[in-house]
Amino acid sequence: MNHLKSDVVLPQPYLLFLGDTTEPGYAKTAFGLRDWAGERCVGEFAIDGATVTTGLPSLTPEQAATMGAKAIVIGVANAGGFIPPTWWPALVRAMEAGLDIVSGMHARLRDIDVLRDAAQRLGRRLIDVREPPANIPIATGKPRTGKRLLTLGTDCALGKKYTALALARAMNARGVDATFRATGQTGILIAGGGIPMDAVIADFAAGAAEMLSPDAAETHWDVIEGQGSLFHPAYAGVSLALLHGSQPDVIVVCHEPGRERVLGHPGYALPSIEDTIDLALRLGSRTNPRIRCGGVSLNTARLDANAAARVIAHESDRLGLPVADPMRGGDAFEQLVDACLS
Amino acid sequence: MNHLKSDVVLPQPYLLFLGDTTEPGYAKTAFGLRDWAGERCVGEFAIDGATVTTGLPSLTPEQAATMGAKAIVIGVANAGGFIPPTWWPALVRAMEAGLDIVSGMHARLRDIDVLRDAAQRLGRRLIDVREPPANIPIATGKPRTGKRLLTLGTDCALGKKYTALALARAMNARGVDATFRATGQTGILIAGGGIPMDAVIADFAAGAAEMLSPDAAETHWDVIEGQGSLFHPAYAGVSLALLHGSQPDVIVVCHEPGRERVLGHPGYALPSIEDTIDLALRLGSRTNPRIRCGGVSLNTARLDANAAARVIAHESDRLGLPVADPMRGGDAFEQLVDACLS
Repeated sequence: MNHLKSDVVLPQPYLLFLGDTTEPGYAKTAFGLRDWAGERCVGEFAIDGATVTTGLPSLTPEQAATMGAKAIVIGVANAGGFIPPTWWPALVRAMEAGLDIVSGMHARLRDIDVLRDAAQRLGRRLIDVREPPANIPIATGKPRTGKRLLTLGTDCALGKKYTALALARAMNARGVDATFRATGQTGILIAGGGIPMDAVIADFAAGAAEMLSPDAAETHWDVIEGQGSLFHPAYAGVSLALLHGSQPDVIVVCHEPGRERVLGHPGYALPSIEDTIDLALRLGSRTNPRIRCGGVSLNTARLDANAAARVIAHESDRLGLPVADPMRGGDAFEQLVDACLS
Repeated sequence: MNHLKSDVVLPQPYLLFLGDTTEPGYAKTAFGLRDWAGERCVGEFAIDGATVTTGLPSLTPEQAATMGAKAIVIGVANAGGFIPPTWWPALVRAMEAGLDIVSGMHARLRDIDVLRDAAQRLGRRLIDVREPPANIPIATGKPRTGKRLLTLGTDCALGKKYTALALARAMNARGVDATFRATGQTGILIAGGGIPMDAVIADFAAGAAEMLSPDAAETHWDVIEGQGSLFHPAYAGVSLALLHGSQPDVIVVCHEPGRERVLGHPGYALPSIEDTIDLALRLGSRTNPRIRCGGVSLNTARLDANAAARVIAHESDRLGLPVADPMRGGDAFEQLVDACLS
């Protein structure tokens, strides 16, 4: 799919590895890949004890390789965020079947002797998508050709990635040439490429954003996954570097109705949507004076359909902007897409 | 000197190494150390061909060691920013005389086999101050005890470090307990410690600023060296992380009269002093609602004394704030210190 292409290409299609996971919450990466890159996932593979499933065909690594799979993706986390020894034999087996290993976890694959030795012996690649590319340049601030959209949030973890994916998919559905640009590990696995902004050296963060959304045809849209929030006490610097380097023509502000405190920082009130738009336009105009707000994306997953529709209509009236939940779609979302492209 | 203490301590006093430098512009680090940490520099050491001198006593490494020197500091750069082979024998000799090597250059000391082998053989340390400490935490955003001042600029390279040094020194001269906090390599060499903000991973940059200026007595001031500019197309993210993490009670905005374009980014007009103050207060109030502007520091090195005095008076009238050139001192500077402490 065109909107998922990238300059940094991971080996695909994938076999999704579920480990021995029994907690669906730990399998968010696998579910995200199923939902957004399903056509590039040949199936899933679990070991004894697993109860979680994506609903994709259950395949052995050998079967997956026969069907064209190029890599096994670790699609789950465990409580400690590491790669437990109980998973190692299955991962070695996948390499023996011809698959590379792709991981978005904090722990590095090559730091596990068994995996490193097997990869060397078999000529397989161990790919940690949390490692940024070498030689990211210092940002130039020079205008680039093509159009760019950046999702921004009032906080972390409230739908910036899904909003960007949904907008890119909707643009493509309308025949607009659009590319989703991933800035976090799950997005990178979905896109098959990207740059993990949280791992870039601070001085190069804006340069990474420039590298991620290069010159393109004037009718082409890069739809860039935002990170953090301009009001976040820990991550605002990353958000600003991404805003400056992305030079967006359009921003879409993402919010979760009802969230009142910054996740993990209860001493901090969430900024309002209006303040977020205002600050983003003020700061973003430094590198793109034409920046404008296309509208607002609300994450209404905690509301029922009626309550969601009410909140969306109310916020749209209040703000005078298109407001939608991309995961619910509908007319509201189509109007948001209209406004972004207009 | 109290205002130069730090939690991360380099071996001192220093012998300043000048290499074979003939261009004074390449010896800025040595001059900075002479000017701001002169009591911790026992002397200088050059090799054949050097014409630059700091005016400090010329000593061999053996003499310097006898006088108590603990480290030789590479106080010069060359055109390529690397450590040329012609310097290596002198650096090995210094290690043989008992000195560690401290470098603020981009090139890593341990990447030079001759130096690494000699350090191992002799039990000396090779210290690259551009390497941030391990285990920098994610910023918490929690208020800390003690007072903090941050210098901010309309651009890079116009006096943020010297302003912070001069303010810390002036506070100490008044009997105020103040500590200069270094965020760049020259500042770190001067302070004998600090964190190189430009080398920290983006997600941890605000956490590094919190680590650099920890809880302190309520009467104590941390005077923190600023980096970049909130309007800089490449480095604004670093500046914002430093602002959020520092939680300054007072900012001092640094500017060079006559500079109209961002250094190295001629497509970008310099922001005005007023816009810089306004944006810094708006963004800084997120982590410290009591933030205020103490005044403005002007770098008038390119002006004669009369022109400098005129510009300082004019800007002070125009802005309604204390304005001074810390390198010229005088009543204007004392009024700036008053305003910061008030």
